[in-house]
This record gives sequence, structure tokens and C-alpha cells, in this order.
Amino acid sequence: MDSDYINLKEFINRNSDKKVVAIQGLGFVGAVMSLVCANALTEEYAVIGVDLPSEKSLKRINEFNDGLFPLVADDPKIEIFFQNSRSKGNFYATADPVAFEFADVVIVDVNLDVDKSNSEDLSLNNFNINLDNFRNAISTLGIFCKSNALIIVETTVPPGTCENVVKPILLEEFSKRNLDSKSLKIGHSYERVMPGPEYIDSIRNYPRVYSGIDENSATETEKFLKTIIDTSLCDLTRLNSTTASEMAKVLENSYRAANIAFAVEWSRFAEEAGVNLWEIVDAIRVRKTHSNLMFPNIGVGGYCLTKDPLLASWARKNFFDQSEDLFMSVDSVSINDQMPMFAYKRLRSVFGDLKDKRIAFFGVSYRGDVGDTRFTPVRGLYELVSLDSKETIIHDPFVDFWEELDLQVFDSAERIFEFNPEILIFSTAHSIYKQENFVDKILNLKPLSIFDSVGLFNECQIQNLSTRHRISIIGRGDIS
Amino acid sequence: MDSDYINLKEFINRNSDKKVVAIQGLGFVGAVMSLVCANALTEEYAVIGVDLPSEKSLKRINEFNDGLFPLVADDPKIEIFFQNSRSKGNFYATADPVAFEFADVVIVDVNLDVDKSNSEDLSLNNFNINLDNFRNAISTLGIFCKSNALIIVETTVPPGTCENVVKPILLEEFSKRNLDSKSLKIGHSYERVMPGPEYIDSIRNYPRVYSGIDENSATETEKFLKTIIDTSLCDLTRLNSTTASEMAKVLENSYRAANIAFAVEWSRFAEEAGVNLWEIVDAIRVRKTHSNLMFPNIGVGGYCLTKDPLLASWARKNFFDQSEDLFMSVDSVSINDQMPMFAYKRLRSVFGDLKDKRIAFFGVSYRGDVGDTRFTPVRGLYELVSLDSKETIIHDPFVDFWEELDLQVFDSAERIFEFNPEILIFSTAHSIYKQENFVDKILNLKPLSIFDSVGLFNECQIQNLSTRHRISIIGRGDIS
Repeated sequence: MDSDYINLKEFINRNSDKKVVAIQGLGFVGAVMSLVCANALTEEYAVIGVDLPSEKSLKRINEFNDGLFPLVADDPKIEIFFQNSRSKGNFYATADPVAFEFADVVIVDVNLDVDKSNSEDLSLNNFNINLDNFRNAISTLGIFCKSNALIIVETTVPPGTCENVVKPILLEEFSKRNLDSKSLKIGHSYERVMPGPEYIDSIRNYPRVYSGIDENSATETEKFLKTIIDTSLCDLTRLNSTTASEMAKVLENSYRAANIAFAVEWSRFAEEAGVNLWEIVDAIRVRKTHSNLMFPNIGVGGYCLTKDPLLASWARKNFFDQSEDLFMSVDSVSINDQMPMFAYKRLRSVFGDLKDKRIAFFGVSYRGDVGDTRFTPVRGLYELVSLDSKETIIHDPFVDFWEELDLQVFDSAERIFEFNPEILIFSTAHSIYKQENFVDKILNLKPLSIFDSVGLFNECQIQNLSTRHRISIIGRGDIS
Repeated sequence: MDSDYINLKEFINRNSDKKVVAIQGLGFVGAVMSLVCANALTEEYAVIGVDLPSEKSLKRINEFNDGLFPLVADDPKIEIFFQNSRSKGNFYATADPVAFEFADVVIVDVNLDVDKSNSEDLSLNNFNINLDNFRNAISTLGIFCKSNALIIVETTVPPGTCENVVKPILLEEFSKRNLDSKSLKIGHSYERVMPGPEYIDSIRNYPRVYSGIDENSATETEKFLKTIIDTSLCDLTRLNSTTASEMAKVLENSYRAANIAFAVEWSRFAEEAGVNLWEIVDAIRVRKTHSNLMFPNIGVGGYCLTKDPLLASWARKNFFDQSEDLFMSVDSVSINDQMPMFAYKRLRSVFGDLKDKRIAFFGVSYRGDVGDTRFTPVRGLYELVSLDSKETIIHDPFVDFWEELDLQVFDSAERIFEFNPEILIFSTAHSIYKQENFVDKILNLKPLSIFDSVGLFNECQIQNLSTRHRISIIGRGDIS
């Protein structure tokens, strides 16, 4: 017996009066979900976070057990919840799947990725979804779990996955172990996590949809959710089947992606026609039927909106025997993926050749006030610009190293200004960039060019900046 | 001088103390706009409605002058406003363009149609916009109008039309007449009319966007709008150019069309996957960011959403030298145009062959509680079903004759039931179809099949109906 297993046994013995919740996958959702479960509202759980024994995960697991929450986040509740579970001693992280033996409830928070690498032209005619990792994760549960454990899938999956993948795998593993298949309980419930200052509350106080493969599974899932979600603040909605709630999740994100793609397309048209899409959107959003209309932006990033619509389209073909894609949803992803390229073309058409230019990027995160570079649209723009220009430098207060591109990122604006950039590209809508003292600093630089690809500045700031600098705003014709 | 001109002169003399507003085009917008102007809030106008001397328009003009408002509408204010203007004697309708000579303000409400006939496959690769009628209408204004008349375009036009079409034509006609081109005033302001019980208020009490080709035109347009719009209830928003407000209008409708297309696509997926999209949409719309998500439906009809997105795409190519369509917007129209065919396929897949079946349609209007068959999606479904089935019959309480198809429509449900239909297709969401006494009648028919293509019935009604009949709902898997 290795020391990890001894620690795990000790943890279980110490918490023998508690039900055990195991979280499978300690990423952006699983890590925070662990805290929410370890600080449940109406029940005391012993929570085990389980991840794969990869180098990265093992580092994360060690951080957890050493008292260091492994994600950088703005939400002060994260540290409070983490320290609270430390002092209660009800959280343990491990790479040993034997941990699932102890679980009364398992929450599946593993990744399910889409491979777009076969679509060099961004048309997405050839994207691929590989379920191998997900299948392996479910097999692991089938091998180790108690037959009456409640398994709740929280991963965003192609609609139909619980019925067509999870259930058959678990049944097969159960039958190998001669377990009673009737005690199988599978639920599905998706989170609506929003990284940022309300990370925890976006799980705990936010309405949730859930379902089960049968009445009993749905009811057990509901009972569990009620112990961690504050149902005095938000509703739980039961849907009729796991396929329905799986579809709800991808539909929700596809809708968002489609709204963004719509704005992307009109943003280009507005630039061509020399009008200001920002004031148009403002004028239209007064209608309640149009309040979801989005403003122009450099595009969409993050882990979800860049792939979820594809999961649905894939499911349609692979689980439901249809030959056709969900065109609008796939096209939305494709249009959004192209947006950094459009932004680059706009930059070139307004400011001309970049080849002798020193260029500073402000922001690499895919979202304002968050340090998350996963699938950030800034990447596409940065890659095109850096190929083309003399030199580049990057600022971001929430990111100190851009892992995907192996690049240093500075958090001092002064450092950037010393670099003497000729073009400033604002590429993430971090709040500090809009603050008056920051805008004043830019106003005092020697005349240069500014490309605001995220709609950071208000009209007054734009007019001020344009008295000294050349400024171009995404979704807007030339500023006179 | 013909008698029409004498009447017109008499009308002008009788109203010589009033400013004259001429409405060009007396269709669904122009007719009601005439009433709003003749009942302006802060000014007494003499209003002249002008239309072309076609057979249809002449009939309409005569009805107007004979005291018969020519549109059937649910809004009681229409009759009140109409009778009020009759008793004031401040409205006159004519086909004589000389009427524009008297106008201080002209509101352009003529049609601008899109020809989709080259796209038999509904892909819209080859749609065409013919501006000839619109150009002629503007030329007429240039020939007759006073040089200082304010011309407000209210027609939905391709963005850029005021600058690229209206202004050059008027300047040309003015120069032929040696009029001062500096006094030319062109504004653009679009309505957000919603036919139905609040027809008048949807003009008078609803926020409006406006613009002008220059500062003076915009200011004059604003002044005029303030006399007819209740700005204590809603805002007027000035945009920077006529192209901007033209774009706002088509963007607004394109957004709506895209939302509908999104629902159409997922509706098919839900049917294939055997889930209930209605409950999914309900669960998602609790999020404010997702409140514009639409419910499944047979598709989109009416004059605007079926073509406006195409105007924008056309403008992009023809006024702004772009080679590409606005793909999402064009695709939205295409997807929506295909919806009746999807509904037909669904009908066939659920209820099988129709060839020996007598089929009753409930509703032909494109919208519930309105009598308007223009571009109704019911047409596509009806044509497919009638080709295929033994016999059909149609019910609609708001339409007595289906002009486009030259078909009789009944307003007595009893008449329909005597026909002994084997399938009932609900194709318009008229309120009376949801009323309990109506549902009870259906419940008492001998067992038959029901296809609800508009989501008319609530869950309780569906369950009741399904005890006796086979029922299928659009956007929803089979009902057990």
C-alpha cells in the first residue's frame, strides 16, 4: 500500500460519519465544485477530488493537499471556502481511482474536447470529437464504484451521451463485477459556472437543470443538488430525460455563440458601411425581444462556446442517424473562429503595413477581469500581427505567462510604454483599461495608433483619445 | 381638371390652416400611419394618402374616401382614429401624384420587395432586389414636391439607400426643375408596427430611431416625429447617418429571423432525439442573457422577416463593394423558408401516408389573432399536404378568402368537423384554438390525428387530447 492510499484511508476513517462525494476531474469546474460540495448547505460531505496521474494534475493534487488552491480567481469566497474545508479536514485530492470505491455520489467533471485541427480554413467541415478519454473516465467509475453510487454527469457532452455511452459502459463494468444493474443511478445536471468575482455563487446560487436515466436517478440527483444549491435563491428544473438536459446545455451555449457570430458579421458590415454599430445596438436593445443582441467584439474564447455547438451537431449525426449538421450552430463557431482574422484585416486596412511597427497588446485573457487564456481569440490576432510586425509586447494584469504561446506577459503598463509602441491593441476588456487614470496615461503618450478590438472606451474617452492619437474601434467606421 | 383634382383642391382649401403631410403608399404601414398623422398629438395636420392608380389601390382609395377603413384589424383605436379624422375632414386619399405639391412632409411607405423566385431550392443563392418601383416613387416626389418639403423614408430599404438612391434621384429631379438643392431635406425613421390589437400604439407609443442626410434634416425629422409620437412614453434615438438607421432596421429584423431559424434547427434536432424542446426553452429562458430564445414554430411569415435580412446582404454587395453575403442572415431566411417542408416531413413521419386522408387546417394567417396571409408559412405546408392527401379544408376566424391560393376559408369550426377530417393541422396560433370549449369540442370528435405545428396547447390539454387522439407537437418527440 502506497502512502497515497494510506492517506486516503485515513481521510475516510476521519470522516466516517459523512457521505462521500467524489469529483472526477479537478479543472475549472471540478476544482470549484469540490469547494461547493465541501461547504454544502444542508449536509456535511467528505469530498475527494480525483484526477489523472499526469504531471500537471499531480502538481495540482499536491497543491490542493498542501493548502494551496490551484486556480487563480478573483472571487474571495474561493479562499474562504478552501480554508474552511481545510480546517474541517473534509477535502482530499488524489490520483488514485480506488477513491471511487468510497463514493456515495460521483460528479463527473472531466473534459470532453473537440479537435478542429482538420479544418485549417476554419470552415469546420472536418472537426472531430474523440470520446476515448471520456469513455475511460466512465469505465473507471464502473470498475470502482459501489453499485448504488449516484453518478452525476456534469461534463458538457453530446446530447444522448448518458444513454448511449455512460449507461452501456457502466452496465458492462457492473456485469463484469456481478453487480446488480438495477441499482445503477445516473443523473445529468449541468453547471453555469462563470469564472470571475462570483465563481462560487455562479454554482451555488444559480438555477440548474437536471435529469436522470430513470425516475429514481432523477429524484436522487435532485436530493443531492438541494444539499449544495441554495434553492431559496434559484430554481431546480427537472427535464424528462438525460438527453433533454444534455441538449439544454449545448443549446444554451450554442445560442450564445450564435448571438456572438451574428454581432461579428454585422460588425464587419458596419465597418464597411462606415457606421457605428455600438449606437445601433444600443438603440435596438431597448426592445425586450432584442435584449440579447450582442455588441461587436474580437470574437469568442474560452472552453465552452468555441466547441459546444459542435457537440450537438456531432450527436445529431452519431447518436440520431441524421446526415446533416446543425448548420447555424456549426457556422456560428466557424464565424467566431474567423473573427481574429477579420480584426487583423481591419487593423491593416486602417493603419496600413505593420512591418516597421512596434506593437503592444493589452489583454490576452478571453474575458475581461479573468486570467484564462484557453482558446482566447487574442491568440489568432496576436499570431497574425506578430508575423507581420517588427516587435510585439504583451500586457495583462491577470496573466503572467501565456502558456499556449510560451510568452512572457507584463503586468506593468510603464514597462509597455518604455517599449515605445507605435500601435496599441486593446484585446481584452479588463476594467482597469477603462479607468480614467489609465486613459490619461495613454493620452499623454506621443501620438500613436490605437485599435480597440473589444469596445473598451466610452464615447467621451474615444473623442479625447482621438484629439491626440489615431483610433479605430471594432464595429465602427472611421472616427473623424 | 378631373374630379379627383377638384376634390383634392377643395380638401386643401378646407384645411388651409394646416400643414400637409402626404403618405406615399397606403399598405399595412402607410394606411395606419395616415391615421396616426391625422390624429397627431401636438399639431393638426391635413393628411393626404397617395397610392398608385392600380386596380387594387384605387379600390382602397375609394374605400378610404367613402368612410370605410380598408384593413381588417383587431385594434379598436383604428376605427376611433378613422372616424375622428372623418369628422375633422383632415384626411383624403388619392392616386394623383400632384398631391405631393401640397406636402410639407412626405412619408415614404411604399413596398420594396425581394424576388426569391430564382432559388427554387430555397437556398437563396440567387435572390434579386428590384428597386425600380422604389426609384419611380422617389422620382415622383422629385417631380412634384416643394423644394423645402421634408421627405422621410419609412420603407425598409437596403442600408445606404437614402445616400445612394434617394438623394441622387431627388437632386436630379430638383436640378431639372431648377430648384435649390440646398433646401433638400431627407430623413429616415423606421416604424416597428405590429399588426394586431395594438396596431396604433405600436406606432404612437413605441421607441423610434431616426436620422437625416444632414443635421438640419435630422432635426426637422425629430420635430415632426415629436408631433405624432408620444415621447412621454418612449424615446426617440438619433443615429449619425441615414445608413446607420437603415441598418438598424434590417439588423433588428435579421436578429429576429436568426433567432427563429435557430429555434427551427433545434426543433428538428429535438424531434429526432425524442425530447421536448418546449420544456428545454422554458428552462433556458430563465437566464436574462437567453430571454430572446424562441420556441419551436412552423416558421416565419409576414412581409418583413422573410426578406429584410436579404436587403442587408444585397446592400453589402451593391453599395459597399463587398463580394460576400451576410451569411448568417441569408441562411436564416433560407432555414425559415424551409421550415414548412420540415413540418411536412415530420407530419409524414409521424402519421404516415396521407393519400386517403381528409385533412383540416386551422389557421392560415402568418401570426396568431391577425388576418394577414402575406408570406404565411402555412402556404408551404398546405401546398405539400394538399398535393398528397385526399381532400383538405381550411378554417380561420380572421381570413375569409385565401387570396394567394384562391381558396375559400371557413370561420365555422362546425363546418370543418362536418367534413369528417382524419387529421387536424393547427397552423396558426389563434387564441380561440386554445380555449377550453374549443379543446373540448376536439376532445369529443371520434379518434383522429392532430398535428400542432405552432405549439398551441398547454401540457394539460396535450395530455387530455392524447387520451383520445394521436397528437404530435412540433419540436417535441413522440408523446406516449
